[in-house]
Amino acid sequence: MLGHLARRLGRMQQISNGLKLFSEEPHRHLQTSLETIRPLSMVSLWPFSSQPRDFSQPNSSWSPEMHKAYDHYNALCDTDTENGEEKRGPWRKLPSYNRSIKYATGGIHLSKLIQAKARLFTRNVKEQGATFEYMVFVNKEEKRCVCVFQAGHLLEGAPGHVHGGAIATMIDTVTGTLAGFLSGPVMTANLNIDYRSPMPLGSVVLIHSALDRIERRKTYITCKVTSTDESKLYTEATAAGLQPN
Amino acid sequence: MLGHLARRLGRMQQISNGLKLFSEEPHRHLQTSLETIRPLSMVSLWPFSSQPRDFSQPNSSWSPEMHKAYDHYNALCDTDTENGEEKRGPWRKLPSYNRSIKYATGGIHLSKLIQAKARLFTRNVKEQGATFEYMVFVNKEEKRCVCVFQAGHLLEGAPGHVHGGAIATMIDTVTGTLAGFLSGPVMTANLNIDYRSPMPLGSVVLIHSALDRIERRKTYITCKVTSTDESKLYTEATAAGLQPN
Repeated sequence: MLGHLARRLGRMQQISNGLKLFSEEPHRHLQTSLETIRPLSMVSLWPFSSQPRDFSQPNSSWSPEMHKAYDHYNALCDTDTENGEEKRGPWRKLPSYNRSIKYATGGIHLSKLIQAKARLFTRNVKEQGATFEYMVFVNKEEKRCVCVFQAGHLLEGAPGHVHGGAIATMIDTVTGTLAGFLSGPVMTANLNIDYRSPMPLGSVVLIHSALDRIERRKTYITCKVTSTDESKLYTEATAAGLQPN
Repeated sequence: MLGHLARRLGRMQQISNGLKLFSEEPHRHLQTSLETIRPLSMVSLWPFSSQPRDFSQPNSSWSPEMHKAYDHYNALCDTDTENGEEKRGPWRKLPSYNRSIKYATGGIHLSKLIQAKARLFTRNVKEQGATFEYMVFVNKEEKRCVCVFQAGHLLEGAPGHVHGGAIATMIDTVTGTLAGFLSGPVMTANLNIDYRSPMPLGSVVLIHSALDRIERRKTYITCKVTSTDESKLYTEATAAGLQPN
């Protein structure tokens, strides 16, 4: 698959005069540059620049509450130094880009994948703070993750409140991220969402996801959306992710 | 509520020099212009111009398949003329704006509602064809509706395919529209979605929703998403809408 993708990208490089592909290494052979990168990540395959924007980094649209929640979980990702030895904790912050190229499986997807205009739904608006501001922290040992999410003014459903579809989008994203982290690439097979309380626009919430069970090709995840102090429950959900054959 | 809203809008008019409110009637008293409009609709309350854009109208981003499906259902909305008498059929096309002000209930919502920047989630991107292109046809007699939906390139989830959250968003929108049409304003209480087949970006699909039952304050809706010839099933879902107290 990698070789196929590299050839495609190579052809794209030849035909797209206006775009700068792998701009920091313009003379290096593309196949080689792809092969030397471990693990395969979107950073390496990003076709428009060598350093795509990581949307999960703090920006000026974040409220103090968002910063506080971010700082709390980010601190859990620090490495501990014991007896002169570095020990990495179980928490890890995942980067977030506006394409999901790392899940490319080639074949019929590939021509769509190369469509330069396609963008990840949750990262498709450039204005910071307008839609989905979020980052995901995963804990591999405990098989769970937490997403800190700030809901922007372009996510309106009922007046002044976040659209049920925007909440579903974040639940799909976070449960899919955890299922993918634990089981490899999955497609969402089922989402069952109970909306317990309307969420005002501008809210900062935590989306907690945990592994329920894995049965054959299906990974079952539970999810709840709460206020950052966890005192208020906004939404509860279950999700099932299916590994493709 | 109306008077309160009018006062708010009046104050907004005073403080926002850059915006033209009710531009076709600049010298008319705002309270009067609001009172003369029946029924209360978003058209009348739209604060930025007297004629907001109806996003459900055909535009140049629509594919031939989208136009064909639109034409099919639009023809069902025509009035029949029998014995010199006009008879309106059961189908009706609903307009679609980028605020849902018509459901304003005042009180705590109002300050949020006046936030000039908030936009309906499904209509928040200006570029035609980039995200959600859709319109909804309702049939009151049969208590059902059909939405024609074209999925734009900014709705990506898995490479080349529509994000599960974008599909959930349309299901929430269409089932909520039908529940609201039959029972008055509702908030989504539950969405249960089975994703049967991945939907490629650019697809045109039909979202069929029908009333299942109404129990006290809850309106239950069934939903399925199919290809326009209805031969392929993409998604099945149920939704429950709750009428606020």
